[in-house]
Order: sequence, then structure tokens, then C-alpha cells
Amino acid sequence: MGLDYTNYDTICAPGTPPGTGAIALIRVSGADAVKITGKIFRLVKKGKSLSSIPARIIHRGQIFHNKKPIDEVVVTVFKAPNSYTGEDIVEISCHGSQYIQERIMQLLSENGARIARPGEFTLRAFLNGKLDLSQAEAVADLVASTSENSHRLAYKQMRGHFSWRIEELRRQLVDFASLIELELDFSEEDVEFASREKLVKLLSKIEKELKELIDSFAIGNVIKKGIPIAITGKTNVGKSTLLNAIFNEEKAIVSETPGTTRDAIEDTIIIDGIAFRFIDTAGLRDPDDKIESLGVEKTYQKIDQASIILYLFDASETTINEINETIEEFMHVIDDKSKKMILIANKIDLLMEIPKNFRNLVDLETIFVSAKRKENINLITDRLQETFRKELPAGEDVIVSNTRHHQALKKTLQLVKTVRKGINKKLSGDLVSTDLRAALYHLGTITGEVTTEDILDNIFSKFCIGK
Amino acid sequence: MGLDYTNYDTICAPGTPPGTGAIALIRVSGADAVKITGKIFRLVKKGKSLSSIPARIIHRGQIFHNKKPIDEVVVTVFKAPNSYTGEDIVEISCHGSQYIQERIMQLLSENGARIARPGEFTLRAFLNGKLDLSQAEAVADLVASTSENSHRLAYKQMRGHFSWRIEELRRQLVDFASLIELELDFSEEDVEFASREKLVKLLSKIEKELKELIDSFAIGNVIKKGIPIAITGKTNVGKSTLLNAIFNEEKAIVSETPGTTRDAIEDTIIIDGIAFRFIDTAGLRDPDDKIESLGVEKTYQKIDQASIILYLFDASETTINEINETIEEFMHVIDDKSKKMILIANKIDLLMEIPKNFRNLVDLETIFVSAKRKENINLITDRLQETFRKELPAGEDVIVSNTRHHQALKKTLQLVKTVRKGINKKLSGDLVSTDLRAALYHLGTITGEVTTEDILDNIFSKFCIGK
Repeated sequence: MGLDYTNYDTICAPGTPPGTGAIALIRVSGADAVKITGKIFRLVKKGKSLSSIPARIIHRGQIFHNKKPIDEVVVTVFKAPNSYTGEDIVEISCHGSQYIQERIMQLLSENGARIARPGEFTLRAFLNGKLDLSQAEAVADLVASTSENSHRLAYKQMRGHFSWRIEELRRQLVDFASLIELELDFSEEDVEFASREKLVKLLSKIEKELKELIDSFAIGNVIKKGIPIAITGKTNVGKSTLLNAIFNEEKAIVSETPGTTRDAIEDTIIIDGIAFRFIDTAGLRDPDDKIESLGVEKTYQKIDQASIILYLFDASETTINEINETIEEFMHVIDDKSKKMILIANKIDLLMEIPKNFRNLVDLETIFVSAKRKENINLITDRLQETFRKELPAGEDVIVSNTRHHQALKKTLQLVKTVRKGINKKLSGDLVSTDLRAALYHLGTITGEVTTEDILDNIFSKFCIGK
Repeated sequence: MGLDYTNYDTICAPGTPPGTGAIALIRVSGADAVKITGKIFRLVKKGKSLSSIPARIIHRGQIFHNKKPIDEVVVTVFKAPNSYTGEDIVEISCHGSQYIQERIMQLLSENGARIARPGEFTLRAFLNGKLDLSQAEAVADLVASTSENSHRLAYKQMRGHFSWRIEELRRQLVDFASLIELELDFSEEDVEFASREKLVKLLSKIEKELKELIDSFAIGNVIKKGIPIAITGKTNVGKSTLLNAIFNEEKAIVSETPGTTRDAIEDTIIIDGIAFRFIDTAGLRDPDDKIESLGVEKTYQKIDQASIILYLFDASETTINEINETIEEFMHVIDDKSKKMILIANKIDLLMEIPKNFRNLVDLETIFVSAKRKENINLITDRLQETFRKELPAGEDVIVSNTRHHQALKKTLQLVKTVRKGINKKLSGDLVSTDLRAALYHLGTITGEVTTEDILDNIFSKFCIGK
């Protein structure tokens, strides 16, 4: 099913979170919003009708059905184009019982409004030019963001910071294209309007900027989804106890997301505005039988996905030789050798003293803790924050956090490279301009300068209803 | 902790359901609502401040902290006394992410607003004379109501239908009291201003009205909480299959509330505006051992709470004699012999034919069904609706649905009866008037004419936060 965005009928949906509360908000958008709502709404002020009240002023009244009142509400009218969707909107603030919300939705529907599909309000805002596509996507990200950093990223994107940067790139590419097309028009005269050298220089600049944006996705993605941290180590070294200690210590917002496997539960904790997504893995041991081997394989998959690995061992039962051996063994099986790894020496409560000169004996940074007694847990969280903050770009840099944008930028870069090579090889303008147009197309999909039904379907179907 | 309702500081809370949605609404109420919100809000229109904008008009702007924007919002100011609480209110409509909601609450709190206690907005509305107490209670009922009937009850109470009735009763009692007090003033002169007969007649009228209201609680309570229906019968006659069939058949809103015991799960289904609360009980059998005996005891407790009993038996395995015997046995152990009971003959799919003249052979109404094949299930739900509708009073009657009101009315009635007896016994006016004042006190607690901190605490602590 494609979104039929040529059919601008009137839609309605609750905009507030689902469930019961003091107040709920139902929005009606479309050419008939006032007419339809007017059929089920009566103003407290006698003699006035919904169509006669001025926009943006709150009016009290009743929703009724067959002359029986359903609820006392306040309504506000927004007149096109000065509304979120760019269409006429009526906002109904009702009592937040599920019954009332369902009843009002039903009455609106009986009187000609259609229940909105997910994201349809924002889709209309896009189609009516109130937002570009990347701003529309940022609205969904903003609503879903749970940490200061992911919120800031989404907010800036919604405000258009990212769009301006894309527009600037697009403008440069368009300028470049005009030069090439001009050359094309006069190609029979063998005129070169733009010096090849200048063209290549311009392309290199565009490539550099594209690459910067593409690279920023590594950090943008973890900001958006939380920094994945794997806690690993042999069995019974206290991995789950450590996880509990970290979560308990911080007393921060804790959410539990079931992982893709039953073995790995992901917990997110927000420390000072950064979301850390902890992945508790099954203990590593020699894969003696098949079931365990499967478990261990999953553990390595999880480790691959992590940005930082906390490798835990039992300080009371391990010699330094054993540690070095184990880590060497572990490093041998993980793919990305450059992955940030922190050693955690657990169970210091069982030690007489912390071995002196430990740092000289193993290569990796080591933090000594007692997960059981919750000792030194803050050293771990401090270290994680520090590690992450180093990677954060300066305040005003544009960061890509959306997979779709990342893909589009990569395709654009690839095509721009092909164009540059073509120019270096002195290919004719018409051959070059095909790739150039393709690059412009992909760049244009980001902000929605060019778009397809599939792209829109894909973006807005992921929104919540009412947005 | 008592509610400190002499301290009218400025409070804030989200009013919309908890969780994530497109939009959330945060309300700030109190003398400093505009001042406090003004510190974290910037209007889009340059040069204007929150304190200068007119009431009830929606204004766009930004919430910010340390010059960094947190969200784009719209705000509306309501000026005392023309607001829900009767105080100055600022409503902030923000994007519905949990992060944004928490952040705005935090900023309001840092700038001098206190996070509202449950029900504190409505408490203030009551204390500022915007609502009486029974109307305030109706607001909570309205938000919690899930069916057409419970909604209508709460709505009428919120609109003041019940309050008017109580006020009318109170006025009559006050008039009566004045007559008695007048007599009291002149008691030494042994003057009788009001004829004893007339007084008794007036009291009888009040008693009758009180009794009507008290009696209406039986129906009001089930409308509010759903009509409790016990499905009972011996083990393996298909009780759970029947329950599933009823719920599946109706495809209505189904909610699951864990019962007080692990054995009895309560499911509520709304059929044509009436909430039916089905209680699936453990099967009845001879209590051979202690554990089963406990289970059976619980079953009988559940049966006692039910308004209607559906007694289920296996039509394919029971003779009419056995049925009569079993029912006689069953009736023997239930307390309320007048309780409405419907026989359900299940498993008709296993019968060759439905026994003729069955109705003549057993005393009770019987419905033949196949829970497994979902045959005739609608006959049960039709019958339940019919049974209930017969008990519903005419449209405009006032129905008591609140336990607190019910208790207060019972106390009032008891005292009015004492007063009447005193007058019959020709007790002196001063003796009579003590009871009369007590009756007025209890009647007054309903609408809050008289109130105590305990009453208010008890009522408003049960509200949700933000209401």
C-alpha cells in the first residue's frame, strides 16, 4: 500500500501518548477540519459556531452526540497555511480517558474524517512545504530521543542545520553541473568553458565535505542509539553483578530492551547526557559442546557490535600470566583489533592488596573494582564518559545520525568520485553529466528535493500515529 | 503527610498520559506561573514577553536553558480566576519525548515551581470554588471510566447533577433545622412553632429521598466497576473455554486485571456500553484435601461478590436428575438465594439433540451452547445485557457511584431517623438538634460544604499526577 498523498482528505488522531491521563489532545487536519469538528462540537458561548471563531484562540465547549454531551473540551482552530501541517487544523483538548478519546475519534470518523496513518500529519507538513524531509525525520527522532546528546542532534536537524549543509553541497554540485552542461551545449565547437583543473579542485572540495559527513555517522549513530558497550570475560567473574552495580550506582534512567537473542539483554543507562547501551554477554569458555559453541558465537557477534569492550576477570583467582594469556587469546578472535578495551579486575574485596606495578605487567588500562561491594564502580563510568567525550566533535559540527542519509551520502560520494575520474580521463561532458545527475538525485533524496513514494512510505510508516 | 492547602505555591506537572507521543502538555499553576515559565521561555515574536501576551491565545516559542534551545513549543496563558484551578495557569505544549518532558519539568522546578502532588490541580480547583467536592471526584471517575455507562455517570456528576440533589436535600434539612432552632430559642416559653406532625412528615420525605440515593449505589457501583459475573461449575465443564469464547465473540475492548487471588483472573468486556467483569473461578469439586478446600472457599467468595452467576455444566455427560441435584447442592452453600443465576448447558456439539421440555425439568433458565464451537455464545451476552438493562433506572435519575458518598448518605439517613424518633418521643429541641447538626455535617462532606484535611487527603491522593 502506498501513501496516497494526492488525496488530501481530512484526517484525525490523538497526538498525546496513548493511555489514560488528565488531558488528551486530538488533532483534525484537512480542508474539512472545521466543518467536521463543527458537527460534534458546541461552543459554550451561545450563538457562535466553530467556523466563526478566530484562529489560535482557545474556546470552551462540549463534544456531543445525538444531543447528549460526551465531554467538556477546549478547541483551537489553526488556519491554513499557518499550522503544523499547513492545512486547517482543529485541536481538541479533552479529558484523557480512553473511552472519551475513542468516542471522539469515532464521532469524527462518522462525520467524515479519516483516522490518520502513522506520521501522516508530518507527511502533510512535508508535502505542504512546512518542513523538508530530513527535518520531518528529525521530528520522529526528537520524540524518540532519550538522552541530552541524541535530543540535541535531533533538535538541530529539525531546526534545519543539517538541511542547510546539504543544500550548500547541492548548490555547489548544481553550479558544477551548469558548467558541464554549458560545455555540453557547445561541445561541437570544442570549447572548454571551465578549466579541467578548476573542476577537479571543486569536486575534491565537495568530496571532502561529503566524506566528513559520512564519517560523522559513526558517532551520530552511537549518539542516537546509545554507545554499545560489551561486558565480557570468562564465566563467574561477576559480569552480571558488575552490570547491576553500574545501574544501581548511577540511579539514572534505566530502560530494558530485549536483545536480538535471549542470551543478551541490553540495558541503556544515561550518564550525564550520554546513553550507554550495555550488552551483558554469555560467559566465555572453551566451547566443549555445540550449544555452548553457539552461545559463544553470539557473544563474539555482540562484541563486534560494541564500541568499547569491558573485559572482566577475577583478580582474586588469576595470575598476571594468566591474564596476559587470556587477553592475547581474546584479542586473537576479535575482528577489530583497534577496538577500545578496558580491563576490569573484579573481586578486589577478596584480595589482600592490589598488585603493585600492575600497569607495567599488562598492556591494557586496568580498573580495580568490587562489583559485589560496589567499590570503584564510578571509576568505570567516569572512564566511559571520558572515552566518549574525546570522540565527540566540536559543538556546531553537523553530524549525520540517520542511516538513510548515510546511505545517500555514500552513493553521492561514489558518483562524485566517478565524475572526477571521468574528468581526469577527459571523458566528454555528456558522459560525465549522467553520473552528476545521479549524484544530485541521491543528495536530493535527503532533504526531499527529489523523492519517491517508496522513500516516503518507508520514512513515515515508522512514525507513531498522531505525529 | 497532610496536603498543605494553605500554601498556594506554584505547581507543575504533565497533564497528558505518561510515555512518548507526538505532543505532551505540561501545566504550571499558581501566582508565579507566568513569571516562572517566562524564565525558560522565549516567544518567537521578538520583543514580547510572556507576561505581556493576552490570555487564551496560543503563542509559539522556545524553551531554553543557558541560551540553548530545548524544544519548540506553544504556550497558552490562562488568567485567574478564569482557569481550571482558578489560579494563573500556563500550558506548555511540547514535543512528546520523555526527555523533553523531564527536562522542562526540571527547568520549571529549578526556577521555583514545585512538582504537583496527585490531584493537586483539581484540589486547587475545589479550594478555589471552581468545583465542589463531588464534582472533583467525578473528574477522576471520568478519566478512569471505560464504558459508556460509567462515563455517563461520571460526566453527570462532574456537571453537578448529583451536587444539585444533595444541595436540595441539605436545604430541606437546613430549613428543618431552623424551625427546630427557633423553637429552641423560645423553649422556655414552651412555644411550638412547627407542628410535630408537619416536622415528621418533612423528615419522612427527606428519609425517602436519602434511601433512594443509598439504594441507587447498588447499581451505581456496578456501573462504575463493571457488573461482576461469576462463571462457575464443576471442573472440566468448559468454563475457561466459555470465557474465551465470550471475549473472542465480542471482539470488544478486553482488559485483564489480576484478581486478588492467583486463581481468579478478572476480565472486563464492554458490550454495548456496559462493562461486564467476568470472574473465572476454580472448578467446584468435593474438597478432598486442604489445598482444594481453600480453592473452593475462594470460589464461593468470588460467587458472593458476583451480581449474576453463570452455572455451567456438561450437557453431554449430565442427566437432568444430576443437574437438579447439583444445583440444589450449590444453592445450599451460597448466601444470597435471590442472586440471579443462569444455567449454561455446554458441549451441545456432543449431543444428538437438545433435550425437549428441558425448561420444565429444571427450575432455572437454561442456555444451550458449545463453547468450543462458539455456538450460541451471543445468547449469553444478549441475556446478560437484558438482565442488566432491566435494573437500570430511568435516564435522568441521580445514581450514587462513590463509596464515600454512599457512606455519608447512610450516616445521614441514620441520624435523620434518630431525629424523627426523637421528635416522635417529644424530645426537646436541643437534644434533637445535636443529631440534626451531625446529619448536616455528613451530608455536607459529600459536596465539600464541610470538609477535613483527612477527607481531602484521602480523595486527592488517589488521583493521577497532573490531574
